[in-house]
Amino acid sequence: MRAFRHKHLLGMSQLSVPDIELILDTAESLREISRREIKKVPTLRGKSVVHFFYEPSTRTRTSFEMAAKRLSADTVSLSATTSSMTKGETLIDTARNLQAMNPDLIVLRHPASGAPHLISQKVDSGVINAGDGLNEHPSQALLDLFTIRDQKGSIKGLKVLIMGDIAHSRVARSNIIGLTKMGAEVTVCGPASMIPPHVESLGVRTALDPMEAVRGKDVIMVLRIQLERQSAKLFPSLREYASFFGLGSEAMRKAEKGAIVMHPGPINRGVEISSAVADGPYSVILDQVANGVAVRMALLYLLIGGSRNDDLD
Amino acid sequence: MRAFRHKHLLGMSQLSVPDIELILDTAESLREISRREIKKVPTLRGKSVVHFFYEPSTRTRTSFEMAAKRLSADTVSLSATTSSMTKGETLIDTARNLQAMNPDLIVLRHPASGAPHLISQKVDSGVINAGDGLNEHPSQALLDLFTIRDQKGSIKGLKVLIMGDIAHSRVARSNIIGLTKMGAEVTVCGPASMIPPHVESLGVRTALDPMEAVRGKDVIMVLRIQLERQSAKLFPSLREYASFFGLGSEAMRKAEKGAIVMHPGPINRGVEISSAVADGPYSVILDQVANGVAVRMALLYLLIGGSRNDDLD
Amino acid sequence: MRAFRHKHLLGMSQLSVPDIELILDTAESLREISRREIKKVPTLRGKSVVHFFYEPSTRTRTSFEMAAKRLSADTVSLSATTSSMTKGETLIDTARNLQAMNPDLIVLRHPASGAPHLISQKVDSGVINAGDGLNEHPSQALLDLFTIRDQKGSIKGLKVLIMGDIAHSRVARSNIIGLTKMGAEVTVCGPASMIPPHVESLGVRTALDPMEAVRGKDVIMVLRIQLERQSAKLFPSLREYASFFGLGSEAMRKAEKGAIVMHPGPINRGVEISSAVADGPYSVILDQVANGVAVRMALLYLLIGGSRNDDLD
Repeated sequence: MRAFRHKHLLGMSQLSVPDIELILDTAESLREISRREIKKVPTLRGKSVVHFFYEPSTRTRTSFEMAAKRLSADTVSLSATTSSMTKGETLIDTARNLQAMNPDLIVLRHPASGAPHLISQKVDSGVINAGDGLNEHPSQALLDLFTIRDQKGSIKGLKVLIMGDIAHSRVARSNIIGLTKMGAEVTVCGPASMIPPHVESLGVRTALDPMEAVRGKDVIMVLRIQLERQSAKLFPSLREYASFFGLGSEAMRKAEKGAIVMHPGPINRGVEISSAVADGPYSVILDQVANGVAVRMALLYLLIGGSRNDDLD
Repeated sequence: MRAFRHKHLLGMSQLSVPDIELILDTAESLREISRREIKKVPTLRGKSVVHFFYEPSTRTRTSFEMAAKRLSADTVSLSATTSSMTKGETLIDTARNLQAMNPDLIVLRHPASGAPHLISQKVDSGVINAGDGLNEHPSQALLDLFTIRDQKGSIKGLKVLIMGDIAHSRVARSNIIGLTKMGAEVTVCGPASMIPPHVESLGVRTALDPMEAVRGKDVIMVLRIQLERQSAKLFPSLREYASFFGLGSEAMRKAEKGAIVMHPGPINRGVEISSAVADGPYSVILDQVANGVAVRMALLYLLIGGSRNDDLD
Repeated sequence: MRAFRHKHLLGMSQLSVPDIELILDTAESLREISRREIKKVPTLRGKSVVHFFYEPSTRTRTSFEMAAKRLSADTVSLSATTSSMTKGETLIDTARNLQAMNPDLIVLRHPASGAPHLISQKVDSGVINAGDGLNEHPSQALLDLFTIRDQKGSIKGLKVLIMGDIAHSRVARSNIIGLTKMGAEVTVCGPASMIPPHVESLGVRTALDPMEAVRGKDVIMVLRIQLERQSAKLFPSLREYASFFGLGSEAMRKAEKGAIVMHPGPINRGVEISSAVADGPYSVILDQVANGVAVRMALLYLLIGGSRNDDLD
């Protein structure tokens, strides 16, 4: 049996190809639980998971909570608005206090890049990075990889385009790392102000013209435009962004036949993606969400389910 | 066996008299669970319910959560303050994302009238309207009907007075629909600015003088004055409202002997109701709350408990 | 078998020495559950606990929630931001409404001293005071007593110093009551503006010079400086407070050999305690947190576990 040798999931950069395959295979075998009449198995009974979200979140937190409950783990949820973080405690102290209560896993979302890594060095329980600043969002990348493999059979050799604000997206970063590891050919496209310098060093190509970039792609991953960034003048106006970089039906006609469109959500309809595309036949946006529960069940199972090896990293 | 043929509970207007009777009878048989030493049955084990509250709520949300837990369902709670609704996603997209995680039921409170109806057309899971704008609050009306039947033996032929801001109350609306369906004779009373035009078309009488309106009534349902509406100048001052329309002991002496007083809560003591009446022998306000858990258990059981027919609406 | 004759835990002042010993002994026998592979026993299955926090809290709420879940109780959490308290309902009405839903226990944190006492007179379910204004925080004092007994073997005769803002600390108050009952010799130390007048009537000594006060002590309990109080001019500046009253390594050298350092958290590093001391070998701050879960499990078990006598107070 293949073993998952990690105690934490901090980023895609830590995972090997066999690690990723093990997670995706485990998710595939757990996926059917969510389709049963009784959507629950006793696998993680008596395990406890703390969900600690320093940023608001609907889908990621709900997805993790549902995953935990379908495996019968106990959950406690903390958010920035209801916790004593307002009292000025350091993140490390908060984490060590949570850890002292002996949870099996801490799922952390935090605005500071690297926060989960720091925490993982200070606590005994496992840590899952549920999004840290501009750094990584590995469970999102894993559910994206799962969805691509599920739709296309395999990932190797696929032509993938990531469109939008590459520079400020932890989703883009985690996906670039994961997709290139799995052998996909990745192109990024967006306004010049949103393409990070030296992005080619991550093994991707860049494209500035979206109509060109779409051509021949198997997978088009559209990123959310974070509206709050507009004040930073990274693009002149939403309308201009939408007309140049918004993915619409015309662009889709240039993509490879059978191409799929992905988006991590929440979507801004009519900005980065048209409603026709978001709701169209090539869209797998809601499959991503459904697969997210299965992938998170797999992560919980592999990290705290008892099948781990003793030689943890 | 009588079947409940609905997939959603969107409003009292959708329910037939047999539907309502089935819900009340089911609630009656489930009520004793909350009085046991072990207040829990495994009926809904492995079912999951999402509570999605866009407006603050103590009693409705707690009541639904307790109902779900007493039937062993798993629950996930989302509120406007902790979710990504702040990120500007449309309601439909949020709902479709939740739905993709495959919950059995979504319990939704929303400030916009019709929001649960819209959602119910876009998702596969069942939807319960836990209050939508000025439209309906059907689980409240059902617990009110349950309480009246429990106290009075039956609803048919009872004289019911609803007092207060009829025009802006979803509780009033749902109760008017339910009570008239069940054969009660309903009168509404309040300041002229708070009586909706053409309210008689709903089958109710109107009264402007509260001391007269109370006379001979079996049930007096007092509505909460929403203090935030005072700025809209619907009434001159709280003090004036209280002295004309506040239900006090003097008015109660004109009611039918054995009349009961109801209020959906939270109450404003000394405004729409005096403390003497709220805490008096005719008050069934806390019975309403207790019955609320039983009625919501019945709704969960009928909607997702597996006893449904295949020909759902 | 020793019986716990209380229905509520409102303050240390209500507990006898045998009561306290029973709680600590029960906590000791329950502590190992949190160290098991399967951290869960079915003891409180079908019991429900409402956590009602009018003030933000990470550790106390999480600790209570984990304690409840490890005993298999169902939990519902309400916070000031998501509940209808914003609608102006009185505390008593909110509590009576919660009570009508028939929970077994209400765990209440409230900014007003005496709030839990008031509630306990108005509801049928048990009430635990999880911190009320400047009055008491008994579960904190009990976990502190547990930690001291665990570290030192017994409490009787120990020399304990409580340092900081004694006047505005419910933790200090509960600990003074508990420690003196258990036979410890308690000294309090802080700026003169933070020592309550006539504090000696509680059976403690006062000291103004921290370097002197530390000498010979077995236990040094450091209180959190509530930064929001600085505007009340109780002390000139954080820097000055830290240099006079902050517990550092130099002061620790004057304490008794084997002295332990405690803090209820969250800590302000470099203000009331130096990092060297907080993270040093004499610090038992994280043991306090771990023990907190065990002590709260004991409270839940004794108050609603079925072992109570019939003659409740």
